[in-house]
Amino acid sequence: MRTDNPWIIKSTKIVYENPWMRVREDEVITPLGTEGIYGLLESKDSVMVAVLNDRNELYVIRTFAYPAQSWNWELPGGNTDGEDIAAASKRELEEETGIIASSWELLGKTRVCNGFMTERMAVYLAQDLSFTGKKEVSNEQIDEARFFSMKQIDSMIASGEINDGQSITGIYLVQKWLERQTS
Amino acid sequence: MRTDNPWIIKSTKIVYENPWMRVREDEVITPLGTEGIYGLLESKDSVMVAVLNDRNELYVIRTFAYPAQSWNWELPGGNTDGEDIAAASKRELEEETGIIASSWELLGKTRVCNGFMTERMAVYLAQDLSFTGKKEVSNEQIDEARFFSMKQIDSMIASGEINDGQSITGIYLVQKWLERQTS
Repeated sequence: MRTDNPWIIKSTKIVYENPWMRVREDEVITPLGTEGIYGLLESKDSVMVAVLNDRNELYVIRTFAYPAQSWNWELPGGNTDGEDIAAASKRELEEETGIIASSWELLGKTRVCNGFMTERMAVYLAQDLSFTGKKEVSNEQIDEARFFSMKQIDSMIASGEINDGQSITGIYLVQKWLERQTS
Repeated sequence: MRTDNPWIIKSTKIVYENPWMRVREDEVITPLGTEGIYGLLESKDSVMVAVLNDRNELYVIRTFAYPAQSWNWELPGGNTDGEDIAAASKRELEEETGIIASSWELLGKTRVCNGFMTERMAVYLAQDLSFTGKKEVSNEQIDEARFFSMKQIDSMIASGEINDGQSITGIYLVQKWLERQTS
Protein backbone atom coordinates (compact mmCIF):
# COMPACT_ATOMS: atom_id res chain seq x y z
CA MET A 1 0.00 0.00 0.00
CA ARG A 2 1.21 3.48 -0.90
CA THR A 3 2.61 5.80 1.72
CA ASP A 4 4.09 8.49 -0.55
CA ASN A 5 2.47 11.92 -0.84
CA PRO A 6 0.97 12.42 -4.33
CA TRP A 7 0.73 16.21 -3.77
CA ILE A 8 3.58 18.72 -3.88
CA ILE A 9 3.19 21.74 -1.60
CA LYS A 10 4.96 24.73 -3.19
CA SER A 11 4.02 27.36 -0.62
CA THR A 12 1.60 27.90 2.21
CA LYS A 13 0.00 30.98 3.77
CA ILE A 14 -2.56 31.83 6.45
CA VAL A 15 -5.46 33.69 4.83
CA TYR A 16 -7.71 34.09 7.90
CA GLU A 17 -7.29 33.67 11.62
CA ASN A 18 -9.36 34.11 14.80
CA PRO A 19 -8.83 32.76 18.33
CA TRP A 20 -10.52 29.42 17.48
CA MET A 21 -9.39 28.63 13.96
CA ARG A 22 -7.18 29.57 11.07
CA VAL A 23 -7.57 29.08 7.35
CA ARG A 24 -4.57 28.05 5.28
CA GLU A 25 -4.18 28.19 1.52
CA ASP A 26 -1.49 26.04 -0.02
CA GLU A 27 -0.15 26.44 -3.53
CA VAL A 28 0.13 22.88 -4.82
CA ILE A 29 0.87 20.55 -7.68
CA THR A 30 -2.02 18.09 -7.64
CA PRO A 31 -1.67 14.30 -8.05
CA LEU A 32 -2.55 14.84 -11.72
CA GLY A 33 0.42 17.17 -12.18
CA THR A 34 -1.61 20.36 -12.53
CA GLU A 35 -1.01 23.59 -10.60
CA GLY A 36 -3.66 24.54 -8.05
CA ILE A 37 -4.53 25.69 -4.57
CA TYR A 38 -5.89 23.83 -1.55
CA GLY A 39 -7.72 25.67 1.25
CA LEU A 40 -8.28 24.13 4.65
CA LEU A 41 -9.35 24.97 8.17
CA GLU A 42 -7.01 24.35 11.08
CA SER A 43 -8.48 24.17 14.58
CA LYS A 44 -7.49 22.73 17.93
CA ASP A 45 -8.14 19.03 18.38
CA SER A 46 -11.48 18.25 19.98
CA VAL A 47 -12.95 15.71 22.36
CA MET A 48 -16.35 14.09 22.62
CA VAL A 49 -17.46 12.20 25.70
CA ALA A 50 -19.78 9.17 25.73
CA VAL A 51 -21.16 9.25 29.28
CA LEU A 52 -22.77 5.97 30.36
CA ASN A 53 -24.68 5.45 33.60
CA ASP A 54 -25.08 2.11 35.42
CA ARG A 55 -27.94 1.13 33.10
CA ASN A 56 -25.74 1.82 30.03
CA GLU A 57 -27.87 4.80 29.09
CA LEU A 58 -26.11 7.58 27.17
CA TYR A 59 -26.08 11.25 28.19
CA VAL A 60 -26.91 13.79 25.48
CA ILE A 61 -27.33 17.55 25.60
CA ARG A 62 -29.50 19.82 23.50
CA THR A 63 -27.41 22.76 22.37
CA PHE A 64 -27.53 25.48 19.74
CA ALA A 65 -25.25 24.74 16.78
CA TYR A 66 -24.28 28.14 15.43
CA PRO A 67 -23.28 27.00 11.89
CA ALA A 68 -26.62 25.23 11.41
CA GLN A 69 -28.53 27.96 13.31
CA SER A 70 -30.60 25.32 15.09
CA TRP A 71 -30.92 23.42 18.38
CA ASN A 72 -29.59 19.86 18.25
CA TRP A 73 -28.90 16.87 20.48
CA GLU A 74 -25.18 16.13 20.77
CA LEU A 75 -22.71 14.32 22.97
CA PRO A 76 -20.89 16.67 25.37
CA GLY A 77 -17.47 17.83 24.21
CA GLY A 78 -15.59 20.62 22.58
CA ASN A 79 -12.22 21.86 21.45
CA THR A 80 -9.16 21.50 23.63
CA ASP A 81 -7.28 24.51 24.97
CA GLY A 82 -3.91 22.99 24.15
CA GLU A 83 -3.99 20.82 27.32
CA ASP A 84 -3.89 17.06 26.84
CA ILE A 85 -7.04 15.44 25.52
CA ALA A 86 -7.77 13.37 28.63
CA ALA A 87 -7.67 16.49 30.82
CA ALA A 88 -9.75 18.38 28.25
CA SER A 89 -12.42 15.68 28.32
CA LYS A 90 -12.78 15.88 32.10
CA ARG A 91 -12.88 19.67 32.07
CA GLU A 92 -15.40 19.90 29.20
CA LEU A 93 -17.68 17.32 30.79
CA GLU A 94 -17.73 18.95 34.21
CA GLU A 95 -18.12 22.48 32.81
CA GLU A 96 -20.96 21.53 30.46
CA THR A 97 -22.88 19.05 32.59
CA GLY A 98 -21.67 19.08 36.20
CA ILE A 99 -20.77 15.41 35.83
CA ILE A 100 -17.57 13.98 37.32
CA ALA A 101 -16.64 10.49 36.14
CA SER A 102 -14.07 8.35 37.93
CA SER A 103 -13.63 5.83 35.09
CA TRP A 104 -12.29 6.97 31.70
CA GLU A 105 -11.34 5.06 28.58
CA LEU A 106 -10.22 6.26 25.13
CA LEU A 107 -12.57 4.77 22.51
CA GLY A 108 -10.90 6.16 19.42
CA LYS A 109 -9.26 9.03 17.58
CA THR A 110 -10.97 10.24 14.44
CA ARG A 111 -10.71 12.98 11.83
CA VAL A 112 -13.74 15.29 11.63
CA CYS A 113 -13.80 16.22 7.93
CA ASN A 114 -11.61 14.47 5.36
CA GLY A 115 -11.58 17.25 2.78
CA PHE A 116 -11.47 20.59 4.58
CA MET A 117 -10.25 20.27 8.18
CA THR A 118 -7.12 19.16 10.01
CA GLU A 119 -9.06 18.70 13.30
CA ARG A 120 -8.79 15.37 15.03
CA MET A 121 -11.46 14.31 17.53
CA ALA A 122 -10.84 11.90 20.40
CA VAL A 123 -13.83 10.01 21.81
CA TYR A 124 -13.77 9.04 25.47
CA LEU A 125 -16.01 6.76 27.49
CA ALA A 126 -16.86 8.14 30.96
CA GLN A 127 -18.41 5.97 33.69
CA ASP A 128 -18.82 5.77 37.49
CA LEU A 129 -20.52 9.13 37.64
CA SER A 130 -21.21 11.67 40.33
CA PHE A 131 -23.25 14.80 39.83
CA THR A 132 -22.01 18.09 41.31
CA GLY A 133 -25.26 19.91 40.52
CA LYS A 134 -23.17 22.86 39.31
CA LYS A 135 -22.22 23.69 35.75
CA GLU A 136 -20.40 26.65 34.30
CA VAL A 137 -22.12 26.59 30.93
CA SER A 138 -25.22 28.76 30.95
CA ASN A 139 -28.76 27.52 30.30
CA GLU A 140 -28.66 29.89 27.34
CA GLN A 141 -26.31 27.42 25.62
CA ILE A 142 -27.74 24.08 26.79
CA ASP A 143 -31.49 23.69 26.77
CA GLU A 144 -31.81 20.14 28.07
CA ALA A 145 -29.49 17.31 29.11
CA ARG A 146 -30.43 13.75 30.05
CA PHE A 147 -29.84 10.04 29.68
CA PHE A 148 -31.48 8.01 26.92
CA SER A 149 -31.43 4.25 26.35
CA MET A 150 -29.31 3.14 23.39
CA LYS A 151 -32.54 2.11 21.64
CA GLN A 152 -33.89 5.64 22.04
CA ILE A 153 -30.58 7.05 20.74
CA ASP A 154 -30.85 4.86 17.61
CA SER A 155 -34.42 6.11 17.08
CA MET A 156 -33.32 9.73 17.47
CA ILE A 157 -30.70 9.23 14.76
CA ALA A 158 -33.18 7.39 12.49
CA SER A 159 -35.66 10.28 12.84
CA GLY A 160 -32.98 12.93 12.27
CA GLU A 161 -33.34 14.37 15.80
CA ILE A 162 -29.66 13.54 16.26
CA ASN A 163 -27.92 14.47 12.98
CA ASP A 164 -24.51 15.63 14.18
CA GLY A 165 -21.89 13.46 12.47
CA GLN A 166 -19.38 13.96 15.29
CA SER A 167 -21.94 12.63 17.80
CA ILE A 168 -22.90 9.71 15.53
CA THR A 169 -19.19 8.79 15.30
CA GLY A 170 -19.03 8.77 19.13
CA ILE A 171 -22.24 6.73 19.34
CA TYR A 172 -20.86 4.12 16.89
CA LEU A 173 -17.73 3.79 19.04
CA VAL A 174 -19.56 3.44 22.38
CA GLN A 175 -22.02 0.92 20.92
CA LYS A 176 -19.13 -1.25 19.69
CA TRP A 177 -17.53 -0.97 23.14
CA LEU A 178 -20.80 -2.19 24.70
CA GLU A 179 -20.97 -5.11 22.24
CA ARG A 180 -17.45 -6.15 23.22
CA GLN A 181 -18.45 -6.26 26.91
CA THR A 182 -21.16 -8.86 26.29
CA SER A 183 -19.44 -11.01 23.66
CA MET B 1 -38.03 22.57 23.95
CA ARG B 2 -36.48 25.84 22.80
CA THR B 3 -36.55 26.88 19.18
CA ASP B 4 -35.44 30.52 19.55
CA ASN B 5 -31.98 31.65 18.46
CA PRO B 6 -29.88 32.66 21.49
CA TRP B 7 -27.36 34.48 19.26
CA ILE B 8 -27.83 37.86 17.60
CA ILE B 9 -26.04 38.32 14.27
CA LYS B 10 -25.10 42.00 13.85
CA SER B 11 -23.21 41.72 10.58
CA THR B 12 -21.64 39.14 8.35
CA LYS B 13 -18.77 39.18 5.86
CA ILE B 14 -16.86 36.75 3.65
CA VAL B 15 -13.19 36.78 4.70
CA TYR B 16 -11.86 34.09 2.33
CA GLU B 17 -13.16 32.32 -0.75
CA ASN B 18 -11.98 29.75 -3.29
CA PRO B 19 -13.92 27.57 -5.76
CA TRP B 20 -14.66 24.90 -3.09
CA MET B 21 -15.33 26.85 0.08
CA ARG B 22 -15.78 30.23 1.65
CA VAL B 23 -15.10 31.46 5.16
CA ARG B 24 -17.58 33.77 6.85
CA GLU B 25 -17.03 35.91 9.91
CA ASP B 26 -20.11 37.10 11.76
CA GLU B 27 -20.17 39.89 14.31
CA VAL B 28 -22.43 38.55 17.06
CA ILE B 29 -23.91 39.04 20.49
CA THR B 30 -23.37 35.67 22.20
CA PRO B 31 -26.00 33.84 24.28
CA LEU B 32 -24.28 35.36 27.35
CA GLY B 33 -24.89 38.89 26.05
CA THR B 34 -21.26 39.64 25.21
CA GLU B 35 -20.00 41.02 21.90
CA GLY B 36 -17.92 38.67 19.78
CA ILE B 37 -17.20 37.11 16.42
CA TYR B 38 -18.00 33.67 14.97
CA GLY B 39 -16.01 32.27 12.06
CA LEU B 40 -17.25 29.36 9.98
CA LEU B 41 -16.58 27.49 6.78
CA GLU B 42 -19.28 27.22 4.12
CA SER B 43 -18.99 24.49 1.49
CA LYS B 44 -21.29 22.65 -0.86
CA ASP B 45 -23.28 19.82 0.65
CA SER B 46 -21.63 16.44 0.30
CA VAL B 47 -22.64 12.84 -0.23
CA MET B 48 -21.22 9.56 0.98
CA VAL B 49 -22.22 6.24 -0.52
CA ALA B 50 -22.46 2.94 1.35
CA VAL B 51 -22.08 0.38 -1.45
CA LEU B 52 -23.24 -3.13 -0.49
CA ASN B 53 -22.78 -6.21 -2.64
CA ASP B 54 -24.99 -9.33 -2.52
CA ARG B 55 -23.05 -10.64 0.49
CA ASN B 56 -23.63 -7.35 2.36
CA GLU B 57 -19.96 -6.49 2.15
CA LEU B 58 -19.09 -2.79 2.12
CA TYR B 59 -16.95 -1.08 -0.52
CA VAL B 60 -14.17 1.21 0.73
CA ILE B 61 -11.46 3.11 -1.09
CA ARG B 62 -7.97 4.07 0.04
CA THR B 63 -7.41 7.70 -0.80
CA PHE B 64 -5.03 10.50 0.17
CA ALA B 65 -6.64 12.96 2.61
CA TYR B 66 -4.90 16.25 1.94
CA PRO B 67 -5.69 17.92 5.30
CA ALA B 68 -4.27 14.93 7.22
CA GLN B 69 -1.47 14.43 4.65
CA SER B 70 -1.99 10.66 4.80
CA TRP B 71 -3.62 7.75 2.95
CA ASN B 72 -6.87 6.56 4.52
CA TRP B 73 -9.74 4.15 3.92
CA GLU B 74 -13.02 5.98 3.31
CA LEU B 75 -16.44 5.42 1.81
CA PRO B 76 -16.73 6.84 -1.72
CA GLY B 77 -18.28 10.30 -1.94
CA GLY B 78 -17.56 13.97 -2.25
CA ASN B 79 -19.02 17.43 -2.51
CA THR B 80 -21.95 18.14 -4.80
CA ASP B 81 -21.65 20.49 -7.75
CA GLY B 82 -24.95 22.15 -6.99
CA GLU B 83 -26.93 19.32 -8.64
CA ASP B 84 -29.35 17.36 -6.46
CA ILE B 85 -27.80 14.99 -3.93
CA ALA B 86 -29.20 11.79 -5.47
CA ALA B 87 -27.69 12.67 -8.86
CA ALA B 88 -24.42 13.68 -7.17
CA SER B 89 -24.21 10.31 -5.40
CA LYS B 90 -24.56 8.39 -8.65
CA ARG B 91 -22.03 10.59 -10.43
CA GLU B 92 -19.45 10.47 -7.61
CA LEU B 93 -19.75 6.71 -7.28
CA GLU B 94 -19.33 6.01 -10.98
CA GLU B 95 -16.48 8.53 -11.40
CA GLU B 96 -14.54 7.25 -8.39
CA THR B 97 -15.15 3.52 -8.65
CA GLY B 98 -16.72 2.61 -11.98
CA ILE B 99 -19.69 1.16 -10.09
CA ILE B 100 -23.25 1.67 -11.29
CA ALA B 101 -25.97 0.77 -8.80
CA SER B 102 -29.59 0.27 -9.79
CA SER B 103 -31.00 0.43 -6.24
CA TRP B 104 -30.59 3.59 -4.17
CA GLU B 105 -31.92 4.57 -0.74
CA LEU B 106 -31.29 7.66 1.40
CA LEU B 107 -30.01 6.50 4.81
CA GLY B 108 -29.76 9.90 6.48
CA LYS B 109 -28.76 13.54 6.35
CA THR B 110 -26.11 14.66 8.78
CA ARG B 111 -24.01 17.70 9.65
CA VAL B 112 -20.26 17.22 9.30
CA CYS B 113 -18.89 19.51 12.04
CA ASN B 114 -21.15 21.11 14.64
CA GLY B 115 -18.88 24.04 15.52
CA PHE B 116 -17.14 25.22 12.35
CA MET B 117 -18.95 24.10 9.21
CA THR B 118 -22.32 24.57 7.54
CA GLU B 119 -21.83 21.47 5.34
CA ARG B 120 -24.52 18.82 5.40
CA MET B 121 -23.72 15.29 4.29
CA ALA B 122 -26.29 12.87 2.85
CA VAL B 123 -25.57 9.15 3.16
CA TYR B 124 -26.96 6.85 0.46
CA LEU B 125 -27.16 3.08 0.27
CA ALA B 126 -26.31 1.70 -3.20
CA GLN B 127 -27.10 -1.90 -4.18
CA ASP B 128 -27.65 -4.11 -7.26
CA LEU B 129 -24.27 -3.30 -8.68
CA SER B 130 -22.64 -3.50 -12.05
CA PHE B 131 -19.01 -2.71 -12.74
CA THR B 132 -18.09 -0.70 -15.82
CA GLY B 133 -14.36 -1.30 -15.35
CA LYS B 134 -13.78 2.37 -16.17
CA LYS B 135 -13.24 5.19 -13.72
CA GLU B 136 -12.40 8.83 -14.24
CA VAL B 137 -10.52 9.29 -10.99
CA SER B 138 -6.83 8.56 -11.45
CA ASN B 139 -4.90 5.86 -9.60
CA GLU B 140 -2.85 8.75 -8.24
CA GLN B 141 -5.84 9.62 -6.05
CA ILE B 142 -7.18 6.17 -5.16
CA ASP B 143 -4.65 3.51 -4.22
CA GLU B 144 -6.96 0.59 -3.58
CA ALA B 145 -10.70 -0.12 -3.57
CA ARG B 146 -12.49 -3.27 -2.48
CA PHE B 147 -15.25 -4.93 -0.49
CA PHE B 148 -14.79 -5.88 3.17
CA SER B 149 -17.15 -7.80 5.44
CA MET B 150 -18.85 -5.68 8.10
CA LYS B 151 -16.79 -7.53 10.71
CA GLN B 152 -13.59 -6.49 8.94
CA ILE B 153 -14.89 -2.91 8.72
CA ASP B 154 -15.48 -2.89 12.50
CA SER B 155 -11.94 -4.18 13.05
CA MET B 156 -10.49 -1.52 10.78
CA ILE B 157 -12.24 1.17 12.83
CA ALA B 158 -11.14 -0.42 16.12
CA SER B 159 -7.52 -0.46 14.92
CA GLY B 160 -7.68 3.12 13.64
CA GLU B 161 -7.17 2.04 10.00
CA ILE B 162 -10.52 3.70 9.28
CA ASN B 163 -10.56 6.94 11.29
CA ASP B 164 -12.57 9.26 9.06
CA GLY B 165 -15.58 10.48 11.05
CA GLN B 166 -17.65 11.04 7.90
CA SER B 167 -17.11 7.40 6.89
CA ILE B 168 -17.85 6.13 10.42
CA THR B 169 -21.13 8.09 10.34
CA GLY B 170 -22.00 6.35 7.06
CA ILE B 171 -21.00 2.96 8.47
CA TYR B 172 -23.21 3.47 11.55
CA LEU B 173 -26.16 4.25 9.25
CA VAL B 174 -25.68 1.28 6.93
CA GLN B 175 -25.20 -1.12 9.86
CA LYS B 176 -28.52 0.04 11.39
CA TRP B 177 -30.19 -0.41 8.00
CA LEU B 178 -28.85 -3.99 7.88
CA GLU B 179 -30.11 -4.66 11.43
CA ARG B 180 -33.59 -3.48 10.42
CA GLN B 181 -33.65 -5.96 7.50
CA THR B 182 -33.16 -8.94 9.81
CA SER B 183 -35.29 -7.86 12.78
